[in-house]
Amino acid sequence: MVPPLSENAFHETYPSVSFHNRKQTTVYVAKLSSVRIKDQLQPSVGNPASNMNPTDTGMARLTLSDADAQVRRWLADEVHKLGCNLQIDQMGNMFAQQTGHLKSSVPMIAMGSHLDTQPRGGRYDGILGVMASLEVLRTMKENGYQTAFDVGLVNWTNEEGARFPKSMCSSGVWAGATPIQQAWDLRDIHDSNVTLRSELERHGFLGDIPCSATEGVALGAHFELHIEQGPILVESGRSLGVVQGAQGYRWLTFTVQGRDAHTGTTPLSARQDPLLAASKMIAASNAVAKRHGALASTGVIKVPSNASTNTVASEVTFTLDIRHPRDRVVQTVQEECLESFAAIAREDGKGVKFDWTLDTDSAATQFDSGCIEAVRMAAEALVGKEKCVDMTSGAGHDSVYTSRWCPTTMIFVPCRDGVSHHPEEYCRQEDCALGTQALLEAVIHYDRFISDRK
Amino acid sequence: MVPPLSENAFHETYPSVSFHNRKQTTVYVAKLSSVRIKDQLQPSVGNPASNMNPTDTGMARLTLSDADAQVRRWLADEVHKLGCNLQIDQMGNMFAQQTGHLKSSVPMIAMGSHLDTQPRGGRYDGILGVMASLEVLRTMKENGYQTAFDVGLVNWTNEEGARFPKSMCSSGVWAGATPIQQAWDLRDIHDSNVTLRSELERHGFLGDIPCSATEGVALGAHFELHIEQGPILVESGRSLGVVQGAQGYRWLTFTVQGRDAHTGTTPLSARQDPLLAASKMIAASNAVAKRHGALASTGVIKVPSNASTNTVASEVTFTLDIRHPRDRVVQTVQEECLESFAAIAREDGKGVKFDWTLDTDSAATQFDSGCIEAVRMAAEALVGKEKCVDMTSGAGHDSVYTSRWCPTTMIFVPCRDGVSHHPEEYCRQEDCALGTQALLEAVIHYDRFISDRK
Repeated sequence: MVPPLSENAFHETYPSVSFHNRKQTTVYVAKLSSVRIKDQLQPSVGNPASNMNPTDTGMARLTLSDADAQVRRWLADEVHKLGCNLQIDQMGNMFAQQTGHLKSSVPMIAMGSHLDTQPRGGRYDGILGVMASLEVLRTMKENGYQTAFDVGLVNWTNEEGARFPKSMCSSGVWAGATPIQQAWDLRDIHDSNVTLRSELERHGFLGDIPCSATEGVALGAHFELHIEQGPILVESGRSLGVVQGAQGYRWLTFTVQGRDAHTGTTPLSARQDPLLAASKMIAASNAVAKRHGALASTGVIKVPSNASTNTVASEVTFTLDIRHPRDRVVQTVQEECLESFAAIAREDGKGVKFDWTLDTDSAATQFDSGCIEAVRMAAEALVGKEKCVDMTSGAGHDSVYTSRWCPTTMIFVPCRDGVSHHPEEYCRQEDCALGTQALLEAVIHYDRFISDRK
Repeated sequence: MVPPLSENAFHETYPSVSFHNRKQTTVYVAKLSSVRIKDQLQPSVGNPASNMNPTDTGMARLTLSDADAQVRRWLADEVHKLGCNLQIDQMGNMFAQQTGHLKSSVPMIAMGSHLDTQPRGGRYDGILGVMASLEVLRTMKENGYQTAFDVGLVNWTNEEGARFPKSMCSSGVWAGATPIQQAWDLRDIHDSNVTLRSELERHGFLGDIPCSATEGVALGAHFELHIEQGPILVESGRSLGVVQGAQGYRWLTFTVQGRDAHTGTTPLSARQDPLLAASKMIAASNAVAKRHGALASTGVIKVPSNASTNTVASEVTFTLDIRHPRDRVVQTVQEECLESFAAIAREDGKGVKFDWTLDTDSAATQFDSGCIEAVRMAAEALVGKEKCVDMTSGAGHDSVYTSRWCPTTMIFVPCRDGVSHHPEEYCRQEDCALGTQALLEAVIHYDRFISDRK
């Protein structure tokens, strides 16, 4: 278990990270030395996963669990203390709004992410983005800095889809991609009597406001700070990722059918061995992806429960996850995989049959050039050009949905070994603070861009 | 469900199979037209598996179940009717003995197999061998034919190992390969309160005679008629397999360890993907086996239960079953697999680690040349040389254990599509009768060989 940092210990960690003597925007926002991101490092809110080493930082805070309700109430208190207007929509999304000095009716520049985690998740994925947003609002308030337009934060409900199985669930409803009834009807994977809606009601987070970009709380922009969840920043020694968009991806499930047969009595030439064929298919998909600079991954493979050492399996299913920043490449990789799978199915023994289903098809996303520019300016000023890198998000995020309706981008910070969705997920305190400072400054830049434009 | 054949219908099936006008030994044993193998085709003894088509012949008769006790009592009645002496040993193995005219103390020439089945098994695997043995004894009796030496049948307990998990269990005890206490202590896989010994006692089949080739019922020879359980006879259009021995085989389990990682954010070059490596290993083991004319099969592969489409698995386990009639080749295939697995583990990304265990190591068995010669003479006389083929048993059988202590061989008959351990397992009535006739004649030949020798 991580010992909760004392206020002093935390401050001692940061003096070396002195963001406050820089010119540019920081003349307006004196410093971030009062960072309270420690709240996010503080495991008292939510149930941290057990069996942790000192730098393990696991968290188990499933969507709309009691622990999630607890952190939501805490967040509501914190934004109220800052004088924000808090709106909660019909999916429980929390929108906290700080009025800008123009008192414009233009929708707010939002910073958002999510507070829910995987059952054995970390304390950075999503959480860092919300806590950093809160810290930005606090820092502005403490320094008497007022943006021109309204700014605020969003806590999106059920990003993980771990308890109610739909990821980026409520930003999807907000963006009109998912009907609200379908989202409300999602059932707890461990207790089918419980729905997402019944838990919203139980905790008092079923708001009145429509969950909709057009009829509910509109956003003028969306900035999301997030751990990279991959090894690129760590391995390249960069500090900040300027995110250009999100990869397209497709999830397919293949079923390979053969015939069960005795392994001792059936010559290789007489077999229809679906596991041998599936193995060759998995290896082939990897070769195809390499050829195109894409990703192809099989995470799940299953044989029937009565499979045994001395029986050729009757059937095998496996998943295939194909990703690339360009949809055209995703399509090409899929086509070439299917061609090579068909050849493999014919090739051995008496041949096997295979079917496939397309389970998810998520198009590639290009983020907003204005938002990206604001992040780039902030990031390069903070750490220098050589410590920044343009990146494409490999994972899905709420920002993918917000980008359909408002200028959006993301900022990535390194996480140890690229590990995420795991209790060992870890982002150094310096990187949390650096990302938060970049978020603060990017929002200020963006606020100025649109002020200048209007 | 197969409608039970009426006595008449059964006899009508067989006239075309007229074995009774042949010369050689059959002058002594007029005919097999009174075949009562129908008992074995008759599903009233034991619980046939459900959902059967007309030619499906499923059987669920787990070792020492009530159904197994019922068929054992029936078998005891039948051999008593023939005037046999029935001995039951401490593993419930049933030895029925018909005295030869020499009244020699030489141990009997036995015909044996087993009456237990897999939970969703067929009605031929094992059962055919015991029913054919009974039919041989009946046919000799009806025709007044007496062998020189004693002949008899054996019903071996728990050959399948499906309920009490050890296959060829009681022939293994008899051969001294398995301590009797270990076999007695085997627990019902569905009810750990029940042991093999407690079920022997409950049904009255715990005999007094030691289960031992040396201190219990000794055997002078062991002939076993069995369905091939593979496609070689069917596909080559042969009728009878003259079995030379049993393949050596080794069962290994491999554990490949990598690191779980997000499929969207982890470049291929940064992965330790155990499922990709395992897939390549399975394909490689097949290539190695092909090169050596051996068999290598993976029946089981497992990823952790929390595996998901968008996560590289942390660990994969898979089984490998290597077989060849020569132990040296089994060893070579294993060595070459291990070499290629090590190369695969190093090859990709950051490399994975793998461990392996040797779970079973069964040496190749060479059957007795005298027994083989007796079967060959019988088989070639019955169907002609071109319809016979020398074979190696791919599966394990009780005969593998008896061959350690007495001259042994087996006779194979075709089964449809090579399917076994499945309700669709099917051996045509003509083939059942042909195999039984071959068994009868082989035993008579063998009895003469040893009479001539002694």
